[in-house]
Amino acid sequence: MGELSRIGVAIDSDLLEKFDSLIAARGYTNRSEAFRDMIREELVDAASEDPEGEVVGSVTLVYDHHVRMLSDKLTDMQHDHFHHILSTLHVHLDHDNCLEVLVLRGQAAQVRRLAEALISTKGVKHGRLAITAARSEL
Amino acid sequence: MGELSRIGVAIDSDLLEKFDSLIAARGYTNRSEAFRDMIREELVDAASEDPEGEVVGSVTLVYDHHVRMLSDKLTDMQHDHFHHILSTLHVHLDHDNCLEVLVLRGQAAQVRRLAEALISTKGVKHGRLAITAARSEL
Amino acid sequence: MGELSRIGVAIDSDLLEKFDSLIAARGYTNRSEAFRDMIREELVDAASEDPEGEVVGSVTLVYDHHVRMLSDKLTDMQHDHFHHILSTLHVHLDHDNCLEVLVLRGQAAQVRRLAEALISTKGVKHGRLAITAARSEL
Amino acid sequence: MGELSRIGVAIDSDLLEKFDSLIAARGYTNRSEAFRDMIREELVDAASEDPEGEVVGSVTLVYDHHVRMLSDKLTDMQHDHFHHILSTLHVHLDHDNCLEVLVLRGQAAQVRRLAEALISTKGVKHGRLAITAARSEL
Repeated sequence: MGELSRIGVAIDSDLLEKFDSLIAARGYTNRSEAFRDMIREELVDAASEDPEGEVVGSVTLVYDHHVRMLSDKLTDMQHDHFHHILSTLHVHLDHDNCLEVLVLRGQAAQVRRLAEALISTKGVKHGRLAITAARSEL
Repeated sequence: MGELSRIGVAIDSDLLEKFDSLIAARGYTNRSEAFRDMIREELVDAASEDPEGEVVGSVTLVYDHHVRMLSDKLTDMQHDHFHHILSTLHVHLDHDNCLEVLVLRGQAAQVRRLAEALISTKGVKHGRLAITAARSEL
Repeated sequence: MGELSRIGVAIDSDLLEKFDSLIAARGYTNRSEAFRDMIREELVDAASEDPEGEVVGSVTLVYDHHVRMLSDKLTDMQHDHFHHILSTLHVHLDHDNCLEVLVLRGQAAQVRRLAEALISTKGVKHGRLAITAARSEL
Repeated sequence: MGELSRIGVAIDSDLLEKFDSLIAARGYTNRSEAFRDMIREELVDAASEDPEGEVVGSVTLVYDHHVRMLSDKLTDMQHDHFHHILSTLHVHLDHDNCLEVLVLRGQAAQVRRLAEALISTKGVKHGRLAITAARSEL
């Protein structure tokens, strides 16, 4: 964890009260924890705007496993980029549909490009990339 | 402005250092100001997720003024909803294209519906809604 | 897959050319596939705006496994909501940090609330929810 | 407007039916118009991810006009960047609060930097940038 700093922050009492209600509703039991999470959110956003920023994220794909050769194609693509793919998770949603989550690591531009290539594959119905951490931050 | 509270926040020193760099790059000269802005951002997001939350926002439209009757139609729509439209701004972007910003006020669901109706009007090329303030917060 | 419709769409030639370049850069080999993906993106967005819309999504968490009792707490929370959590994936990012992806299913409001509860847990550094499919669509 | 292309798109009938309901609810009377808008949305997103892409957008600021020198400071900043600011609109929200919309034009990175500088100014409570058009597209 490293060293901890304790800082003072000046906030209008009204605004603080509304913030306390909001974070309580979200499940926070500790105000500093909420502040730290907001800070990390800003840092992750900033890192993912920089094409060369190192990030970790996940891309979630929904696809129809009946589409001919799709599973093979997705597997091939993953092996071509294995050094950017840390792990995958597969869920059988229903008779036709699979959901697959891939955890990606690399420069923001590479991660985004790889996610786009997966999402654009014929048979993949929908996909979304969630960049979750800046490596610098870990 | 009302009363000011001074609170203590515990943050890992590493994280704080990165945050200080980020906000300096964005032009903040005061850390508390950055914290207050993050808090307001969260409150506005929360208000705009609640369909009945009172919000203020702006919708920016780009349209081709050559499309027959479009200006008249947009004006008519605005008068039908005049109680939700505080003001508008018009810019002539180039020979063909106009940009119009409308400042909207109302419940999040109404504001969103009105923005969608404007954006979907034939001839409007693109539009985007930016919800900027929760009324509760003002 | 069901039945296929073939529709005609009128697009300014300039706009179409730019769109074709964009989707080629993203890896699409087929224009209809790109249109279908855009449609699904809109439907997922609409479903996730409706608090009662049925959705599937994933929440990606990064946390420090050294935080006392955190793994136990996250596991307990997951069991309390097991009927909304389809599966999870765990990755050891480095000496301190874990990444966990949970695939969630339920009404948009429930999925969002569960994601917020997980993200706000003390020790979870960052988290992001990606809603990926509307059940109606599957 | 230029030349018009007419293309064929193959879509699963189920998906098309859901899409038609969605766009009708949003106010579209014409399916091609909805497709063109989605395409422009993608192009604007892509342009705004490229730091050097030329864009037009608006930044909406809410601020307390009682904060000493704030109006002067915002005006000074605007004059320093007058070549990126096409026009502004001012609304008096209530006794304390002003809303100001600035229409910005320039490279995505410049527009973003200018928006950040305005938002981070002491006294500005909240601000949001909406990038609305890629110049290439106009």
